[in-house]
Parts: sequence; structure tokens; C-alpha cells
Amino acid sequence: MVLYSYYRSSAAFRVRIALNLKAIKYETVPVNLLEGEHRRLEYLRINSQGLVPTLDAGDGLLLTQSPAILEWLEGQYPDSALLPSEVNQRALVRSLCSIIACDIHPICNLRVLNYLRDALNGGDDQKIAWIHHWIKEGFCSIEKAIAENETTRFSMGDEPTLADVYLIPQVYNALRFNIEMSEFPKILNIYHRCLELPAFKHASPEEQADFLQH
Amino acid sequence: MVLYSYYRSSAAFRVRIALNLKAIKYETVPVNLLEGEHRRLEYLRINSQGLVPTLDAGDGLLLTQSPAILEWLEGQYPDSALLPSEVNQRALVRSLCSIIACDIHPICNLRVLNYLRDALNGGDDQKIAWIHHWIKEGFCSIEKAIAENETTRFSMGDEPTLADVYLIPQVYNALRFNIEMSEFPKILNIYHRCLELPAFKHASPEEQADFLQH
Repeated sequence: MVLYSYYRSSAAFRVRIALNLKAIKYETVPVNLLEGEHRRLEYLRINSQGLVPTLDAGDGLLLTQSPAILEWLEGQYPDSALLPSEVNQRALVRSLCSIIACDIHPICNLRVLNYLRDALNGGDDQKIAWIHHWIKEGFCSIEKAIAENETTRFSMGDEPTLADVYLIPQVYNALRFNIEMSEFPKILNIYHRCLELPAFKHASPEEQADFLQH
Repeated sequence: MVLYSYYRSSAAFRVRIALNLKAIKYETVPVNLLEGEHRRLEYLRINSQGLVPTLDAGDGLLLTQSPAILEWLEGQYPDSALLPSEVNQRALVRSLCSIIACDIHPICNLRVLNYLRDALNGGDDQKIAWIHHWIKEGFCSIEKAIAENETTRFSMGDEPTLADVYLIPQVYNALRFNIEMSEFPKILNIYHRCLELPAFKHASPEEQADFLQH
């Protein structure tokens, strides 16, 4: 498999974690968003939206959109399951994933921040306030949801699930923007616990070839 | 089942369509977002995020976040399947869903528009330009993806799938903001075809009790 990735993309980071947790071998092709490589014809032929990640799963199958890629991986590689077997628990995990995938991440995405700057003349202070607002609002919900499972080691149980796959890149992002994580002690605990696992650690931006080159 | 809904919420509209397509009986409890009913303690006990929809599936099971609710419904009520049985096709459908659920809808959501107005002093013109920008960008991607399935009646095949369940509320929203849909002829065709089906029509905002009362 080949993963078209950008080291700092949360969505690509999610897929890297899942591939590692499932011990699937893959090559990484970096797509430099800051240099506009995602808008070049060569990449648009692979992903017409011009977004990362894309997973080339072989035989011409190009998968886009990290939620779709993660569900596909879970369906095709059921070992090291990332969704609980019990159906109602699966819904709880997916609900946590959606808080990140829908209510936090897209609103703080690079393309939205660029639009704020270019079309609304938003300055750096307004950009930072925007990011802090949406991440904190989402993390409040997640912190509450995790608190209901007080005794578990990860977001939803004693093994990592898709909820952790989504959460860790979002926490990485929050720390990059100096969000005060002491308000979210359970999330922060889970973050540190996950990064002790090689699957998460090796997926982190710092361990990507395009990070090391930049 | 009980669906906590707001007539104009795209996310609630999605769940209403899916419940109807699967012929699941449910009652609707309207939550008036404009009057702040979603922030009242009574509703926060049901959905700690204060968002609609919530599906009370009985026996104390409260499901939140429309993507999680829709996957749960598909798992528990496999008749009138909304995902193809072939795994790669499922990924394509989920990818289309994510374009709407992640790349369009959350960015144009009421709470984001309110933040633009209140914290960034955005005027009505800027709000409209914002909405147009993100909907058009997403619809360009969807139009291209659908074009690759030229002969099918719905977004992904000859029967409605989750892709249509997500698409139709987003088109409804686009029309409300006067987006020129002639740029997206395939999307518009599918919109009209879906609204000929009672499951979609009866889920539309105009047919909800809280629309008629407002």
C-alpha cells in the first residue's frame, strides 16, 4: 500500500496510526501542502479533491477521506480491531470520532484558516482565538464522555479504538497551538499513554520523512 | 424510538431520511436551536454536546452524532441497505458522505456562522460569501465523483445510499442560500429524483411539525 501523506495533517496521522496498529506495511509519499503539491495535476489525478490522505490500496483502488479509509481498513483487516464488537459500543466510539472529525478538525483546517486570513483579513490573534475556541469546545465534550468510562485505559476501553486514532492527532495539534491541556486531564493522560505505543509514536509527525526534511 | 430534531438541521434531516428509508417508526421531539433549547439543562442531560440530533433508541440508549447514528441504524436494521455490500464500493460511498459531513457542513453550521458574526464582526455579505465558498468547493468534488458513475440513478448506484442521505440535506441548504445549482447538474438531478421518494420528502424541513409551527 502507498499512503499519500503530509506529516502535519491530522487526517493523514490518523491513517498512519491505524495502519501501524494493524501492522499493515505501507510506503509513504509526502505531499507538501505548504508548497501546493496537493493542487498539482499529478496529485489531482490521484485525489480530485486535492486533499491528503489518499491510500493507494493496490489494483487501482484509490481511497480518499480518512473516515472512509479507516472504516475500509477495519473491514478488510479485522485483526487488532479498532471498533468494539458490541454494536452500541461501536456507536459510542464512532460518536467520539465524529466530534473530532466533524466538530473540531475541519473548522481549524489549514484551508479554513487561510480563508479567514485572506477573505476576512483575520490577523494572527484572531486565528489563534478561533483555533482555541473550537478545540476547547470539542475537548470539553470528549472529556465529559471519557469521564463516564473512568476506569478504562484508553478513550473507550482498555485497548485503543478509532476514538484514540482520531483523538491523538487532535491533541498533537492542540499542543502545537499552546492549548492549556490541564483543563482536560483525561484526554492528556490518554495522549501520553497512546504515545508510549510504537504504533502511535511511529505515526507522529516528528517521525515522518517529510518532517525531517523540512 | 424518539428523534430529537430541529427541522432545518441538516444532521437531523439525514437521520430522518434514513429512518424513513428503513421504515422505522419514530416520534420527533423538536429542539428549537434559535431559542436556545439545545443549551437547556433538560436537553444537555440527553446530549451533553447540546447538538441535534439525538436518537433515543430505547432502553436508555442515547445515540449522538449523525454519522454514528447512521452507521448504527445500518448495522441494526440491515434491510433497505444504505451501504453497498461490496467493500470497495462502501468506501466510495463513505468518502462522498465525508466530503459533506466534514468538508462542507460543519464549516457552514449555525454555531460557526454565529462565531463569524460575533467574534470577527462578519457582516451578512461575508457570511453569504463564506457559505457559498465552502458549499461550491465541496459540490465540485461531488459532481466530479458522481460523473464517474454516469449511468446510475442516485449518487452511487440505482438505489439510494448514505451518500444521498447526506447529499440531499446539503442541497436543500445550498438552495436556501441561493447557490447557483446549474453548475452542478448531476447533483441537482439526484436531488429532484430523491425528493420524489416519500422517505426523502417526508423527512424534509417543510414537513416537520416545528417548521409548521414556526
